[in-house]
Amino acid sequence: MDTVTPPILKGFSSKVQALTLHADGVKLLDQVALPNEVRYLTIRTAGEMANAIVTMLVRGAPAIGIAGAYGTVLSAREAFASDLCLEDFRKTVLADVEALSQTRPTAVNLFWALDEMKKILGEPVESAAQLLDLLTEKARQIHQEDWDACHRMGDFGAALVPQGAGIITHCNAGALATGGYGTALGVIRSAFANDASIRVYADETRPRLQGARLTTWELLEDGIPVTLISDNMSGSLMRAGKIDMVVVGADRITANGDTANKIGTYNLALIAHAHGVPFYVAAPLSTIDRSMRSGDEIPIEERDATEISTMNGELICAQGVQFYNPAFDVTPAKYISGIITEKGIARPDYLKSLAQLFEA
Amino acid sequence: MDTVTPPILKGFSSKVQALTLHADGVKLLDQVALPNEVRYLTIRTAGEMANAIVTMLVRGAPAIGIAGAYGTVLSAREAFASDLCLEDFRKTVLADVEALSQTRPTAVNLFWALDEMKKILGEPVESAAQLLDLLTEKARQIHQEDWDACHRMGDFGAALVPQGAGIITHCNAGALATGGYGTALGVIRSAFANDASIRVYADETRPRLQGARLTTWELLEDGIPVTLISDNMSGSLMRAGKIDMVVVGADRITANGDTANKIGTYNLALIAHAHGVPFYVAAPLSTIDRSMRSGDEIPIEERDATEISTMNGELICAQGVQFYNPAFDVTPAKYISGIITEKGIARPDYLKSLAQLFEA
Repeated sequence: MDTVTPPILKGFSSKVQALTLHADGVKLLDQVALPNEVRYLTIRTAGEMANAIVTMLVRGAPAIGIAGAYGTVLSAREAFASDLCLEDFRKTVLADVEALSQTRPTAVNLFWALDEMKKILGEPVESAAQLLDLLTEKARQIHQEDWDACHRMGDFGAALVPQGAGIITHCNAGALATGGYGTALGVIRSAFANDASIRVYADETRPRLQGARLTTWELLEDGIPVTLISDNMSGSLMRAGKIDMVVVGADRITANGDTANKIGTYNLALIAHAHGVPFYVAAPLSTIDRSMRSGDEIPIEERDATEISTMNGELICAQGVQFYNPAFDVTPAKYISGIITEKGIARPDYLKSLAQLFEA
Repeated sequence: MDTVTPPILKGFSSKVQALTLHADGVKLLDQVALPNEVRYLTIRTAGEMANAIVTMLVRGAPAIGIAGAYGTVLSAREAFASDLCLEDFRKTVLADVEALSQTRPTAVNLFWALDEMKKILGEPVESAAQLLDLLTEKARQIHQEDWDACHRMGDFGAALVPQGAGIITHCNAGALATGGYGTALGVIRSAFANDASIRVYADETRPRLQGARLTTWELLEDGIPVTLISDNMSGSLMRAGKIDMVVVGADRITANGDTANKIGTYNLALIAHAHGVPFYVAAPLSTIDRSMRSGDEIPIEERDATEISTMNGELICAQGVQFYNPAFDVTPAKYISGIITEKGIARPDYLKSLAQLFEA
């Protein structure tokens, strides 16, 4: 088997796969080209993978974790092909792991996945070939486990969705952002499998428009109707009584439940809170960073001003303006109604409930 | 005098003029072309003016009011040139007034200004020439009074701005949206004249990007530094303690203080409320519609889906998506700290305080 073809757990799955490991490299769906062009790239080296993460050809916290693991496999393949001794093989791969960890700072899944790969690298083996096999196996396992976790999250989360519910989601926490199926969109897929009358609203998610470009595309690929709104329409919809819940993904959740996610998530949480609309975060345990006590400790990536100042290369503001472009914000735990994980749904107090899920 | 050249009331004014009346027509700054191109159009007929309002070459509640008044003058000039008898002159102009009133439904200033023009049309006169003169005089007066009102609002509002304050504004409630100087941006101009250390943040204002395209341009034209943010970053900035107040314009304010303004205003008000940041509306009395008791009565314009689905003509979402594109939302009075008018600042209870301003 040279591709990850995860078994369908039950019922409903997704046609959309962001990345898969093959004998000749990692097949990556170019998420910058979507939705106008559906183009797959073959990533052959760890350096190419690091670049793909930086330029957001692949994005989404769990998917970045898998990309890091597969990038490590590509590094190991290169090192193996160079016929390095075991010690040099380890050094070379470790250097690539380090480079992969420097790509994006906020999503913790990347560091989690690279740590898993480093543990394998440190195992006592007799040959580089053996290590390459173990690394490959581990990377496939990380992907498979994420895929499984998303389906379990989907099923847990679907139980929270009222009949015919209006649901807002932000950014893309879908099949494209994970090993397949999605976190927040996994919940929506599972809910839709049960009840085709739910109404999904996608925040377009400025500045990079992941909601418009990616979420609408992947939901429609799976035949799930979706209404596109700009990020500032959520209050108007909620005031009109059209929204019953919000579900989003996460890039990093701290021990107390504070959640870093795509910029705009915090605004959406406050809007939901003001209307008494439940606000859920869906994320695998690998997104939870128990080393941090609160969201204040999470490093927030600031990205290039051109993401705001230009659209398809054309300037959309006056020359000489200043910019502020944080890629993420932190939603304090008090605005989060529940955190949907593959082991169940944590409720406040999260310090306790998240710890319990890890022990479960 | 064939142009409106309002006297500088005091201190600080603006270089930016959205529209001025001339012997050969109305000179209109094309706000769709901004900021990449600074282009003036000459509008010669009432029909052209109606089209300019629909296509948003001119926009902003007070500016639309002035455009309606000037459109009526253009109609009167056409009718006069056709040598109509007084009765036919009145009928022709009234028909154009009716057409001008069908352009955009939400901003009340348009209907207010057209009503003012209709009153003139009904006055007993002896000739069409005399009526043309009176209509022209009234339209100039509407423009001049708006310009004066904006400067007074600016001075009232500036007193609310703390030293070195961080201020968020939404959409464009500036010189471009009024007879000059602006409502919300009038407050910012007056505050900046007193204290150049204030920090202005402009919401880009999806979907039409009036904040990015217009507000950054007009503030920089006047040498006022401005930081552009996407609409979903306000919470992040407020949580970081960088924002001391919000000031926005209005398209229609009902008797109880509920305020219709550009979509996203309500979200911003809720975000400000959650952080204890004062949220002010700046608008002339002509924006206050005392015939409506609450915001639930305000008609909200829904605009074309292409405003959301495309950017510079390119599709930014998947084919087959549904849309929701209300141009305005309603902010309930309870989230508004004060309404800054040319007669002073109304505070809750607005039913009482707004009525008092009208009597003052």
